[in-house]
Amino acid sequence: MTFQDRLRTAQDDIQTTLTDLLAAFDGPVGDAMRYACTGGKRLRGFLALETSALFDVPRPRALRAAAAIEAVHAYSLIHDDLPCMDDDDMRRGHPTVHRRWDDATAVLAGDALQSAAFEWLADAATHDDAGVRADLVLTLARNAGAAGMVRGQALDIAAETAATALSLDQIIELQRLKTGCLLEWPCRAGALLAQANPAPLLAYAADLGLAFQIADDLLDVEGDAEIVGKAVGKDAGAGKATFVSLMGAEAARTRADNLVKTAQGSLLPFGDRADTLAAVARYVVTRDK
Amino acid sequence: MTFQDRLRTAQDDIQTTLTDLLAAFDGPVGDAMRYACTGGKRLRGFLALETSALFDVPRPRALRAAAAIEAVHAYSLIHDDLPCMDDDDMRRGHPTVHRRWDDATAVLAGDALQSAAFEWLADAATHDDAGVRADLVLTLARNAGAAGMVRGQALDIAAETAATALSLDQIIELQRLKTGCLLEWPCRAGALLAQANPAPLLAYAADLGLAFQIADDLLDVEGDAEIVGKAVGKDAGAGKATFVSLMGAEAARTRADNLVKTAQGSLLPFGDRADTLAAVARYVVTRDK
Repeated sequence: MTFQDRLRTAQDDIQTTLTDLLAAFDGPVGDAMRYACTGGKRLRGFLALETSALFDVPRPRALRAAAAIEAVHAYSLIHDDLPCMDDDDMRRGHPTVHRRWDDATAVLAGDALQSAAFEWLADAATHDDAGVRADLVLTLARNAGAAGMVRGQALDIAAETAATALSLDQIIELQRLKTGCLLEWPCRAGALLAQANPAPLLAYAADLGLAFQIADDLLDVEGDAEIVGKAVGKDAGAGKATFVSLMGAEAARTRADNLVKTAQGSLLPFGDRADTLAAVARYVVTRDK
Repeated sequence: MTFQDRLRTAQDDIQTTLTDLLAAFDGPVGDAMRYACTGGKRLRGFLALETSALFDVPRPRALRAAAAIEAVHAYSLIHDDLPCMDDDDMRRGHPTVHRRWDDATAVLAGDALQSAAFEWLADAATHDDAGVRADLVLTLARNAGAAGMVRGQALDIAAETAATALSLDQIIELQRLKTGCLLEWPCRAGALLAQANPAPLLAYAADLGLAFQIADDLLDVEGDAEIVGKAVGKDAGAGKATFVSLMGAEAARTRADNLVKTAQGSLLPFGDRADTLAAVARYVVTRDK
């Protein structure tokens, strides 16, 4: 299978899993949860599947971890798009949840997706070893919470109203939290599900996360809103310091390319079993959305 | 110790535990998390401590469960108070989080408190048996999510704009979800921590939850905003169907009193070890805030 075929198969399987797991929830909040968990690149879920595949973790288990991280990612986007946060109207080429429904439904759908992710991970169907399930919950809660993703969001909001622009080091730290933490977890999940050492995958995830965000900043400058599926040019419009504004587009692209190579280097212990993960790192900086 | 002494000791111990657990989080979001987790009756945490005491669960473990349910309760209040939800300015006698900070900080502090609760429950300090930790996470996630508390919140919002007022049965179901689910969990937690049968405590919790909400409706009509610590008279002002509007105050009080007796009846298997839990049921309908 080519990389694109594997990615497409993963996207289909993750969608099926999410549809099954979310079927129980009714009313507008249930509809909004399903809507927010539809589409997208499924990069985080794909990472959970591919790191699990390295260790021959049964695919149904890996798919539950993939569904959990996609649910947390979807929750973070719903809340991040709210008028009191980034105030975005479009996401993945469709109206954001608060535009399609209302702010209250968006708050509740995000809240419930976070609960759902932990419910799925703690359930016996995810692993017969309860210690593995507890570790999955513990690490995702840490990466998502006030020392992880939420902290990144808070720093991002503070930066918007700060008198001085962020330095490059501050942006790297902000993005490590805001974006990196939710990219790291699925890389860790494969090792946790296999009760294997996560260290090489955490090194891979750190470089991948930074490369991802540099590519995001480049897309905000060079991307096509129709393809990206959300507004572009927002950062420059808001006078926001980004990798591109601080380094220039060319140096940013070089940095991203170097990070891809370092990320791929961390996969060497796995040999050609990690070919797809190596391709993911390349994909992250060449994607057009 | 009298009931009031036990409650006050529990309130102090829960506050200390929350202060310790929340110390790691900095910035405005960390401040808002601590602010939202200060004060309050600690009824949910007290239930976790008292059901744990029935089975001689070590108090440090019970306190972690108490902290987790208080964090989830605080998160639900922060989000419920938002302008797009109930739009409340006062809570526990102080400005609500979005009034003291802003809406974005309130969304993020609530989000992070939910993550924190699951992080604490999944941590090995809560129980050496990972199966117990996974069960604590699983049941709290279910009770808090789109089939539990969030579903109750959504039904409550839908009722406000509905053409016809809710029936008594519909209000009972709404309140079972909105309020009952977060009162049930700490009653279950004591049994889970002891790996004991939760059935009698779940029966107790069901009656307690309904009695609690009837008392809340009575407080909205008869309470003093200064003592209650939040606005009163909101339900009648909004033309909202409540136990009091549907049954009248006297019948509502009789119903609440009968529920207290049934709740206390469910505690008979525990003998006088459950005296404090029996007193909690009485407290729930006689409290003035």
